[in-house]
Amino acid sequence: MNPLRIPVSARRLGLLTLLCLLWGTLRAEEIQSPNKQLTLSVTLAEGGVPTYSLTYKGRPVIKPSKLGLELKNVPSLLTGFTQASAERRSFDETWTPVWGESKTIRNHYNELAVTLTQPATKRTMRLRFRVFDDGLGFRYEFPRQPELGYFTVKEERTQFALAGDHKAFWLPGDYDTQEYSTVTSKLSEVRGLMKSAVTGNASQTTFSPTGVQTPLMLKSQDGLYINIHEAALIDYSCMHLELDDKNMVLESHLTPDAVGDKGLLQTPANSPWRTVIVSDKAGDILLSKLVLNLNEPTKFKDVSWIKPVKYVGVWWEMITGKSTWSYTNMDNIKLDSVDYLKVKPNGTHGANNAHVKEYIDFAAKHGFDAVLVEGWNTGWEDWFGKHKDYVFDFVTPYPDFDVQELNRYAQSKGVKIIMHHETSGSVRNYERHLDTAFQFMNKYGYNAVKTGYVGDIVPLGHHHYDQWMIDHYNYVLEKAAEHKIMVNGHEAVRPTGLSRTFPNLIGNEAARGTEYEAFGGSNADHTTILPFTRLIGGPMDYTPGIFQTRISTFNPGNTSFVHSTLARQLALYVTMYSPLQMAADLPEHYNQHLDAFQFIKDVAVDWDDTKVLEAEPGDYITYARKAKGKSSWFIGSTCDENGRTSRIDLSFLEPGKKYTATIYADAPTAHYEKNPQAYQIRKQTVTSKTKLTQLCAPGGGYAISLVAVN
Amino acid sequence: MNPLRIPVSARRLGLLTLLCLLWGTLRAEEIQSPNKQLTLSVTLAEGGVPTYSLTYKGRPVIKPSKLGLELKNVPSLLTGFTQASAERRSFDETWTPVWGESKTIRNHYNELAVTLTQPATKRTMRLRFRVFDDGLGFRYEFPRQPELGYFTVKEERTQFALAGDHKAFWLPGDYDTQEYSTVTSKLSEVRGLMKSAVTGNASQTTFSPTGVQTPLMLKSQDGLYINIHEAALIDYSCMHLELDDKNMVLESHLTPDAVGDKGLLQTPANSPWRTVIVSDKAGDILLSKLVLNLNEPTKFKDVSWIKPVKYVGVWWEMITGKSTWSYTNMDNIKLDSVDYLKVKPNGTHGANNAHVKEYIDFAAKHGFDAVLVEGWNTGWEDWFGKHKDYVFDFVTPYPDFDVQELNRYAQSKGVKIIMHHETSGSVRNYERHLDTAFQFMNKYGYNAVKTGYVGDIVPLGHHHYDQWMIDHYNYVLEKAAEHKIMVNGHEAVRPTGLSRTFPNLIGNEAARGTEYEAFGGSNADHTTILPFTRLIGGPMDYTPGIFQTRISTFNPGNTSFVHSTLARQLALYVTMYSPLQMAADLPEHYNQHLDAFQFIKDVAVDWDDTKVLEAEPGDYITYARKAKGKSSWFIGSTCDENGRTSRIDLSFLEPGKKYTATIYADAPTAHYEKNPQAYQIRKQTVTSKTKLTQLCAPGGGYAISLVAVN
Repeated sequence: MNPLRIPVSARRLGLLTLLCLLWGTLRAEEIQSPNKQLTLSVTLAEGGVPTYSLTYKGRPVIKPSKLGLELKNVPSLLTGFTQASAERRSFDETWTPVWGESKTIRNHYNELAVTLTQPATKRTMRLRFRVFDDGLGFRYEFPRQPELGYFTVKEERTQFALAGDHKAFWLPGDYDTQEYSTVTSKLSEVRGLMKSAVTGNASQTTFSPTGVQTPLMLKSQDGLYINIHEAALIDYSCMHLELDDKNMVLESHLTPDAVGDKGLLQTPANSPWRTVIVSDKAGDILLSKLVLNLNEPTKFKDVSWIKPVKYVGVWWEMITGKSTWSYTNMDNIKLDSVDYLKVKPNGTHGANNAHVKEYIDFAAKHGFDAVLVEGWNTGWEDWFGKHKDYVFDFVTPYPDFDVQELNRYAQSKGVKIIMHHETSGSVRNYERHLDTAFQFMNKYGYNAVKTGYVGDIVPLGHHHYDQWMIDHYNYVLEKAAEHKIMVNGHEAVRPTGLSRTFPNLIGNEAARGTEYEAFGGSNADHTTILPFTRLIGGPMDYTPGIFQTRISTFNPGNTSFVHSTLARQLALYVTMYSPLQMAADLPEHYNQHLDAFQFIKDVAVDWDDTKVLEAEPGDYITYARKAKGKSSWFIGSTCDENGRTSRIDLSFLEPGKKYTATIYADAPTAHYEKNPQAYQIRKQTVTSKTKLTQLCAPGGGYAISLVAVN
Repeated sequence: MNPLRIPVSARRLGLLTLLCLLWGTLRAEEIQSPNKQLTLSVTLAEGGVPTYSLTYKGRPVIKPSKLGLELKNVPSLLTGFTQASAERRSFDETWTPVWGESKTIRNHYNELAVTLTQPATKRTMRLRFRVFDDGLGFRYEFPRQPELGYFTVKEERTQFALAGDHKAFWLPGDYDTQEYSTVTSKLSEVRGLMKSAVTGNASQTTFSPTGVQTPLMLKSQDGLYINIHEAALIDYSCMHLELDDKNMVLESHLTPDAVGDKGLLQTPANSPWRTVIVSDKAGDILLSKLVLNLNEPTKFKDVSWIKPVKYVGVWWEMITGKSTWSYTNMDNIKLDSVDYLKVKPNGTHGANNAHVKEYIDFAAKHGFDAVLVEGWNTGWEDWFGKHKDYVFDFVTPYPDFDVQELNRYAQSKGVKIIMHHETSGSVRNYERHLDTAFQFMNKYGYNAVKTGYVGDIVPLGHHHYDQWMIDHYNYVLEKAAEHKIMVNGHEAVRPTGLSRTFPNLIGNEAARGTEYEAFGGSNADHTTILPFTRLIGGPMDYTPGIFQTRISTFNPGNTSFVHSTLARQLALYVTMYSPLQMAADLPEHYNQHLDAFQFIKDVAVDWDDTKVLEAEPGDYITYARKAKGKSSWFIGSTCDENGRTSRIDLSFLEPGKKYTATIYADAPTAHYEKNPQAYQIRKQTVTSKTKLTQLCAPGGGYAISLVAVN
């Protein structure tokens, strides 16, 4: 690049601007999806306001909606534009993800790039639209130019004008967390339901009575399914949606930093992609790869160290209160002045040598790849809610956790230990220790880390979703990649398809996971919604597989229960796609149901193909997936609190081939609350011509493994 | 430490509290300085308000003044106290600094520790007072206790009730910079002068019409000299003083963080020491070691790598506009996407191989230890005022700076190159690169770094003087020490004697240095004030030695001039104590005055003894110092814009010994503005009985070297 040349080409803009003024600022530019079912129209409305609209099969998805940004201290990029040029392009490629729901992914779109100039300020902005068969992606591009070097976003003003008062699956807008139950309501009901939708959480900052999060799933009264999210969130702040509930217009609302700024950009710069996935079939939303496709291909040259992981862990026992992360019962500790050898242990520490070895033995016996161990390092006595800077050092084990011996033992059995880095939101402290922590992992043979950002971000004023933190998460991914470490980020920002660029991002939490089943429970329809919302951005470390759904049986003080039948817990390994799957329950509970546990042992974590057999957000989802490099398939079905009868056909199977189907299903009397452990396992031979009818109990579901007979 | 034992002893407090209620909350505790000239009185005023007062030779220095802190979200530590205990102790030690103004330092005080309890909250706070012969130090101590673990300071409410409307040498209160001209006025005039006192600067955040900075120098109408500052600023925010100009009461005002908090503490914790140095002789203020004594001894086991440094540098030529830090004239660059080899150089880059070698040759020829080189690394095209995160990487030299060859060349001549790390205030970026940057220094043989924090702190919302940044500066010192690197911190917080604990902190800027002589000039009395204010906390990298005081002679566009005679520039090497002394002018200017330059070559940078021969803040200062490990002495004298005749006697010399005095003095016609370069050099033989009378021109001064004849 020769930046000195830029001003020369920029000078040409003067000429272009003149030309544009001549050939019309009101001309509408149109493009269609490759299959012609989506039509995008872009125009400059009165006053030079960039506007776009989108139809699907002739039905309005996004009505004419304004685009632009309000800037800090300088004129905004909202009005006064003239059109300098419009470029069109078609693109069609098929790429192979390092891991995923299918062996290859087609990236096929028609593109329109509209360059706009603002004569009054001599500034240029480009709107780039990509129309796929499954939806629209567009972003703002700010070319390098003399009059726009550095600028601060006061607010992005991207509108999504909806065609009606759609049914919405929404979470309260929040700068710090997505760990809420999804509310299902009409958009017009959001305001009235907001207060009750905001439930307690370790860190939350709500901002508006009609602000909601993305991915936002919508369904129109005439049956259109619409999903709004973003892709490739890099060097920008996370987008929420502010609802104008009179006009049913959603508008972008970015996460502010400590002084209220919403992002500092330096040209050349792009916003993340704003995405609208649309179909008249719910299952198409689940199958969309639009968000992944809008991310850049990875630059990693070697990806051989990135592998899907099925794991168990010293985790659920702490979540449920059976054991503790901490080794002692001290409070108010200073990390460097505690001599743990001289302090009385509390006797409830989960991550002790003997117990971890039990997990390693269990993992090895049943073919798991790894054991997550939380609470292995010093500091857990006093880690939360204090806004403490130096809260963990990430390298000092408790006295009863022999890091060298346990890793040796695990590796001798073909198992890895998964590292855990809880930061307590103290990000400067984490970055200060990051290199040392990753070197420590390399030294002992860890190849994956679960990171955590529980509580407020320290220093205060920052938010989990502001630009400064977005940069942090991506910095951790890059540093981890340098050390060939895979990352599973909890309490980080919700994913936006970044795993295409950083395939070592093998998991995220960023939603209400299984842990909440120990904190009061989640709605029985929770897992019939998440694939339409949270999972649109990328895989979730949901940690399914809880067989003993009544926590009080092993921790009498905890009356919470899992809002799911045991059979449905198996289904989640198929319906909640992730290359990282945990069998989250305690080994003793699996030992009580080894027949059902067989499904978790068998199920794949990486796939050649994926089908959606049935789907309706909030009601039910049934997936079939083909194991990577194998002929076997797995089916999972989850339903809401009402239960239902699922009817599927197996026409996706290879014609003429016979398969042994092992069906793990709710017993007729099963019920997520009253009788969760009632399951039945049956085997039958099936072919591509088979049709199956299967009961799903209230809060239930089923899982099927299909193994080719020959 | 066994923290589990703490609650046990804390329980005893209940008993103690009861006892206290019996033996009186209004009892005044008193202690005196070892020489009995200072008397401190501490009492609980009406309502259980901790109060102290201080007298000097029976004259009030601090009238009864309140102590305490306002906390966030919990009851304050201001009132409702009862006295639990009062402990007394005397201390007398003599310690040896790694470098300093004298070979040894006596730390001699009487101490009173008053433990207070607040029965309503069951909390305990301790006030620790140390009364030295030269003043008072006191701090708040917060012992570890069940009811006070973590707490956030809303404001510290330490009062300094003065006995009158003193003359004050003050700077506008500011959360980010001390680079102001000192204003000399009565306290009652501060409010009226504040607006004109605030002059433009790269980053400033003023906060009040009567807020001033420390060290604050005061003089009472009856001739008491009083200096208020703080010592050992660690894990706390920097203190300013808010003036109640009706009652002449100063009150602490801490620097807020991004959300307005003024410090998060975890018990056990201490505030920094609040210091009041007092004497009826101005020179005693200059000689006080109270601030150093209140800091903790160093924990460094090996200090052999820490050595005073006399240096030249590629610096003044950029400051004056003769050359540039940047290698090209690009703007708006992204560090990783510029290929400097393909960009046209601007031809004005100072830090080029040939030129740096000239400096190395000059340094070697004249016996300097080191050459500072600024502008050696990529990024300077676009470094300032953009709030850019990734602004420098601290390891990539410009194409015309051969880091390996230049260090080899320098070392072959017995000279070191001093590293420069300008951060542009982007502290996360600096911390991310810190290890790599220090490893880079170790690799090439650098042993000292000048750090810089020009502009607003990034992320925005933080201030140069808030707790988060204080922690940063100390983190850099610790990391540097791990790499055996000395630090000279510019634009960092003003020092508070921390060099006792971190002797690798060999310099700080934190005031208006010589650079301002190229930005419009400083007042002619500036250097008659700084030793009474800024230097009370520690040495300043003032960068004296400008011989060519008219900048327009070598950069016609710059009409600024140095407000000092040439002779006074020599005096500054003695009056502005620092173990790090720069000969800041260009080599060609020294070559024009090699006779005067001889003083800079000869003068020591480390001392066995220091005397103040004459001093009056704002008017004149004359120091004599004995070179470390040698018999030679050096005298420096600086005066204000009026000029004066200095009369000193040399009774400090060894009796009976003869010394050759080389006197570098203003010529009779010299004047800082009209005739700055008029100097005379004469030699004479002197003894301890000699009395000298020496003219100081307006804005002038003199320097004397005294070498024993036998």
